[in-house]
Amino acid sequence: MRFSSLDELEAGCRDLRGGDPVVAAVASARQAELTKPLGSLGRLEEMTVWLARWQGRAMPRLERVAILVFAGNHGVTARGVSAYPAAVTEQMVANYARGAAAINQLAKLAGAELTVIPLELDRPTGDFTQTVAMDTAEFLSAVDIGYHSVPANCDLLALGDMGIGNTTAASALCAALLGGSAARWVGRGTGLDDKGLQRKREVVDAALARHRLIIANPLAAAAALGGRELTAMMGATLAAHHRQIPTVLDGFIGTAAVLPLARIDARLLDHCVAAHVSAESGHRDLLEALQLQPLLNLDMRLGEASGAAVAILLLRASLACHVGMATFAEAGVAGRVE
Amino acid sequence: MRFSSLDELEAGCRDLRGGDPVVAAVASARQAELTKPLGSLGRLEEMTVWLARWQGRAMPRLERVAILVFAGNHGVTARGVSAYPAAVTEQMVANYARGAAAINQLAKLAGAELTVIPLELDRPTGDFTQTVAMDTAEFLSAVDIGYHSVPANCDLLALGDMGIGNTTAASALCAALLGGSAARWVGRGTGLDDKGLQRKREVVDAALARHRLIIANPLAAAAALGGRELTAMMGATLAAHHRQIPTVLDGFIGTAAVLPLARIDARLLDHCVAAHVSAESGHRDLLEALQLQPLLNLDMRLGEASGAAVAILLLRASLACHVGMATFAEAGVAGRVE
Repeated sequence: MRFSSLDELEAGCRDLRGGDPVVAAVASARQAELTKPLGSLGRLEEMTVWLARWQGRAMPRLERVAILVFAGNHGVTARGVSAYPAAVTEQMVANYARGAAAINQLAKLAGAELTVIPLELDRPTGDFTQTVAMDTAEFLSAVDIGYHSVPANCDLLALGDMGIGNTTAASALCAALLGGSAARWVGRGTGLDDKGLQRKREVVDAALARHRLIIANPLAAAAALGGRELTAMMGATLAAHHRQIPTVLDGFIGTAAVLPLARIDARLLDHCVAAHVSAESGHRDLLEALQLQPLLNLDMRLGEASGAAVAILLLRASLACHVGMATFAEAGVAGRVE
Repeated sequence: MRFSSLDELEAGCRDLRGGDPVVAAVASARQAELTKPLGSLGRLEEMTVWLARWQGRAMPRLERVAILVFAGNHGVTARGVSAYPAAVTEQMVANYARGAAAINQLAKLAGAELTVIPLELDRPTGDFTQTVAMDTAEFLSAVDIGYHSVPANCDLLALGDMGIGNTTAASALCAALLGGSAARWVGRGTGLDDKGLQRKREVVDAALARHRLIIANPLAAAAALGGRELTAMMGATLAAHHRQIPTVLDGFIGTAAVLPLARIDARLLDHCVAAHVSAESGHRDLLEALQLQPLLNLDMRLGEASGAAVAILLLRASLACHVGMATFAEAGVAGRVE
C-alpha cells in the first residue's frame, strides 16, 4: 500500500511537482515561429505547451495514451436518486468489455488504450445518509488501486467513471468542500424528473447535516461522501502528478473526484486539463471554483471518460500542428509588417 | 458557366433543399436506443442526425471528406489594413503545396482531402474604397469556380480561406448586410495594433459610404465588398446545398462569405454547421445573426479551414458512437426506472 494512513496520504498531497518550465518556454518559442499569426491557433497553442511542460519534451508525443475508467456502486442508490437501477453499473462494465459503449468507440478514434477497472461492484459503499460511504481502510484501498493503475511510459492520461448514483456523491462532495446547499450542486444526473430531483436534493442535504463535523477535512469528506470510483480517480490523478503525466479530467464526476486534492493544494491539479463543461448543473460552478477552463462545451453528460476522449482529439490536433508545421524561415513566408 | 447573370444566380438561390427528414428521424430513433442516457452525448447526437438528414443515410459515412481552401488577393491591402504584406497570400499557398501549414496537419489528422484553389492571385480585387471589388463578370466567375470545385461523391465538405486583407472584406460585408458601423464588425485580423485597427475601421466606413446604394442587394454587396475567395466559398456552399452535402463553415471569413446566401433565404444554410467561434471580434455577432451555434470555442483565428478541420474530428466522434455502440437490447443493459 502506498499510503497506509490519511496522514501519509495528506503528506503525499504536499509533494508538489511543476513540470519543466524551460521546456515549456522552448515549445512556446517554436509556436511563435510557425507559419501562422502568433496566437492564431488559440488554445491549440496552449495545449502543446502544456504537454511539453509536463512531458519535459519540447516536441511532445502522444504515442501511449491511456484512458482509465473506474466503476463503483453506491449505497445511496437505495434512496431513489437515479433514473436507472444500480444493476446498470455492472451491465455497463460488461458492455465496455464487449467494446459496445460510447467510450470504446471514442477511445479507438482517439488512439487511446482503454482500461476499465471495476471496484467491488458487489459491495456498494455505505448509504451516506446513514453512515460514511467508506471507512478509512476502504478509502485508502481505493486510493491505492487508482494510484497504481496509471500505466508505465504513459504520455497522457485520461480518467473516467461509471457508477449509478455517483452524481449524488459528487454533488455532496462539492457542497461539503465548496459550500452552498444541495440546490447549488444537485442536477438531474442521467435524467431524473422533478420529483426525483427534489428527492436527490433532500438526500444530499441530509448527508451534509449528518457528516458536518468531519467534512471540513477534504480527505475525510471524500471518504464520507464519495465513492470508490471517485476515490480511485483521485488516486490516479495524484500518481500522475507525482510522475508529471499530463492528465485529462472528464465531466462533473471526474472534476468532483479531484476536488479534495485541490482543497489541499490547488497546484496539485496543474498537470490537469478539463476536457469539457458538462450539461450536469453544478459542473460550470465547480470548474470556476477550480479555475479550470474546459476545452469543449458540447452538452455532454455521459461520463465514462467520453468527454475526455473527445478532448484527446483536440490534443492530437494541437500536437500535429506543433510538430508538422514549417517555421516562417523554413517556408520563406514574410513576417509581420512592423 | 452555371450562372450567367446575377438574376440566374439569385434564381439558383431560390432552389431550396431540405435533406431527408425521415432518415433523420430513423437516426434519431437509433440514438434513443443506444447504451447511454438519452441526450447524454449532447451535440454529438445532433451531429449524426444532421449528417443522416443531409446524406440521406440513417447510418451516415465519412469516407470522402473534402476540404477546399480558396485563396484570393485584395486591392484594399494598399490601405494598410493587415499586419502582413499581401505577398504572404501566395507564399502561404506555396506552404500548403509543401504540406507545411496548419491545415495540412489538421486535414491529415481529420482524414480529409485538402485542395487549395488560388484565384488569380496576381490580379487583386479592386480597392473597394475607390471602386467595386469585382465587376459582375469577375464575381460570377468566382462563384462558378467555387460551385464546380465541390468533388464528386463527397460525404462532407469543409471550406476555408487564405487572403491577406480578407477580414476587412468580411467586416465590410457584415456591416453592409447586417447593419452597424465598422466599430461593430472590424477586429484585429492577423494582429493589427490600435493604430491599424483605427485605419481598418475608417476604410470599412469609407467603403460603406461609397457603395451605400448597391449594398441593399446581397449579391451586389458580395461583389462590391467581398473577395474572390469569399465568393468561391459562397458558390461552393450553394453547390453543396443543391447536392445536399453537409458542409462545415470555418471562422469569421467563412461565415461572412455565406452571409449573402442567408440574406436571400436563411434556409440555404440548413446544410451547414459552424465549426467554431473565432477570436476575431464580430464573429460571435455574425453567428448569432445567422442562428448558427458553433461547435468549438478555442480562440482560434487562423482561417485556412483550420477550425473546420478540428470540427471534422468531432463529427467523426459523433459518427463513431452512432455506428459502433450497442443498443440497450443488444447489450442486455436495463433501461430507465419509470
